[in-house]
Order: sequence, then structure tokens, then C-alpha cells
Amino acid sequence: MITEFTLSTPKENFYNITSQVRQAITASNIKEGMAVIFCPHTTAGITINENADPDVVHDMLLGLAKAYPDRAEFRHGEGNSVAHLKATAVGSSVTMIVADGKPLLGTWQSVWFCEFDPPRNRKFYVNVVGA
Amino acid sequence: MITEFTLSTPKENFYNITSQVRQAITASNIKEGMAVIFCPHTTAGITINENADPDVVHDMLLGLAKAYPDRAEFRHGEGNSVAHLKATAVGSSVTMIVADGKPLLGTWQSVWFCEFDPPRNRKFYVNVVGA
Amino acid sequence: MITEFTLSTPKENFYNITSQVRQAITASNIKEGMAVIFCPHTTAGITINENADPDVVHDMLLGLAKAYPDRAEFRHGEGNSVAHLKATAVGSSVTMIVADGKPLLGTWQSVWFCEFDPPRNRKFYVNVVGA
Repeated sequence: MITEFTLSTPKENFYNITSQVRQAITASNIKEGMAVIFCPHTTAGITINENADPDVVHDMLLGLAKAYPDRAEFRHGEGNSVAHLKATAVGSSVTMIVADGKPLLGTWQSVWFCEFDPPRNRKFYVNVVGA
Repeated sequence: MITEFTLSTPKENFYNITSQVRQAITASNIKEGMAVIFCPHTTAGITINENADPDVVHDMLLGLAKAYPDRAEFRHGEGNSVAHLKATAVGSSVTMIVADGKPLLGTWQSVWFCEFDPPRNRKFYVNVVGA
Repeated sequence: MITEFTLSTPKENFYNITSQVRQAITASNIKEGMAVIFCPHTTAGITINENADPDVVHDMLLGLAKAYPDRAEFRHGEGNSVAHLKATAVGSSVTMIVADGKPLLGTWQSVWFCEFDPPRNRKFYVNVVGA
């Protein structure tokens, strides 16, 4: 079952989408299987990381900005090559395990929509397969 | 259904493999499910990113080269540690959603085979599961 | 079928978990399908890369450390923001193809548990779907 969600991304940030992922898995009635969370945009991505301390997201955004700074040699006319790079570094999807009808996540893990080219109206898909 | 494709990679570049992915999904007759595109090499990877402006690929290759430069301290005798690093940074596979018998991709998204250690004769696999 | 494995990680390193992945796929009796290897921690990840020369792992750890160095501006009180960054750079899971009851891996590929925040007692999950 494929579920589409939308979100608004006012600034470059990680947006916690774990509750939407849980909701889609519950609605699928699948008890054991896999879920793919897929971002159909080229300047945003999906990752799984810490949910407790918002400073972790701050530091990850800073670290990514330092690893992939803007460069005078970049040619892309839109000027957002950095956002494309971060999207590929983070990845456009995550694949998760579904167990007992829920996403199998560690205590500190959440699923994040990573916006690198704000502000936008975005969407993402959750697909659950199994039985 | 698992389909194997081959390609030649004359230089370090991203090679658009979206048409092969579409072809494998069509041949599978699966209407809804998931597809994994898997690269069996350790100095190449698979990513999903912009298909419209070739300057984006140019800039992504440049940004990856700057993030992961060659270093005097590297020990691997083959001299291609940078290619291994980029392969892990990009990832050896992508997982996609199949809807209505087609890959669920955003308007600007294509699937890319990322060659970091040219020239080579390479292969990749597409596996589709679902119903 | 979901299988849980544990491992101890005395130092920052990549730990080869290919034999556990093979074991879980064999036990599932699934001949063709997909396997997800999932890390439920936020300062560790999973990747697929070279299995032959241990210098490749040495060089990848060095390259990641240079791309994501510790920074005075980091705010996270635990002091391990670098490990969170590397976990997201590498990814918290890999998705593999199962063919003939075995993981479809290239000659030089192994599956690695990537510890970025040692020492820990860790776990990971292997889920196999298919027929």
C-alpha cells in the first residue's frame, strides 16, 4: 500500500516524519515486512537519526554544509548544487523493517525528511510490503 | 524477477540507467511493489538525482572529489581508496516504489550508475517484488 | 523472517557481518527476494564495500574522519555529533537482492557494520522477504 504525505519546509532543516510513517504502516495492516520511505525531489532526502536532542540535527546540518560547501566552479544555473550533493549524500529513501505491525526502530531513532533547498511544498511516499 | 544489465564506463561519471530500470519493471509485470537497483562493485554506486541539467552531475562529481580527496596517508595499494569512499558515500543500491507498473519517480529524478574508478565494464541488477 | 544479531565494537571500525547475513538468508528458506540489513543505532551504520584488503577500511575511516571532523560549533552535549554525521553519510541500512537462496554480492563485496561511537554492545536485524 502506497501512501502519499505532504509537508511544508520553511527552512533548511530535518523534519521528523516518524508519526506519518507509523500511520501508513498501521493503515496497511501489514504485520511483518518492509517499508520504503521515498522522497521524489532532487534537493531533499530521507534519513534515520537521533530524535531526542535537537542539537544533533543542528550539528548534522552544519557538518554537511562544511563537507559540501558552495564552490565558484559549480556550473548549475539554479545555484543549488550544494542541495543536490547533500540529497545524494543522505539518500532519497530509507528502507525499514516492519515487525508486529510497527516500524522496527531503535530507541533513539526517528525518520527525517531532510530539506536542503527551502522553502518548498514537498511530498514523500510510504510503501509497505509483506503480510 | 531479477534482471542483469551491463554498461561500459569510459570515465568517472554518472550514467543514466532509468530506461533500463523502467524496462525491468515492465518485464516483471508487477504493478505495485518495490524495486532494488543493486551495484555489485566496490568502487561504483547507485543514486537518484536530477536528470535535466548535466551541470548538476558535473557539480556533484566536483563536490564529491573535494569532500573525499586522495590523501598521502591512504594505504590501499591499488590507489583507488577515493573511489571506495565515494561508493560508500553514495551507496551501492537504491530502493524504489513501483506504482501502476512503473517506477514512482519525481519529475526531475533519474536513476544513475555512479562510476568512480574508470574505465570498466560494469553490471547492475534490478529486482522487482510485489504483485 | 526477521533475525536479530548482536556484536561488540571495541573501537571505531567496520565489522564484517556477511556471514550473519548469509546465515539469516539461508534460515529464511527464501530463494528469491530482498533482504534488508538494519542498524537500530544512531551513531553506527551499515555499508557494502571491499572485503579483501583491510587497508580499504583503514582508508575509508580516515576519509570519513576528514570529511566530517569535530567542530567547536557543534552543540550536542554528548560530544559525538561526528558519529551521527557519519551514520547518516553511510546510512542505517542496506537493501540487497536474494538469488538462489543467497545474497547477490559482487566478488569483492562484503556487508559491514560501521561503528562510529565505540565501545558498544550493538545489534542489527536482517529481514528477508520473497518466496
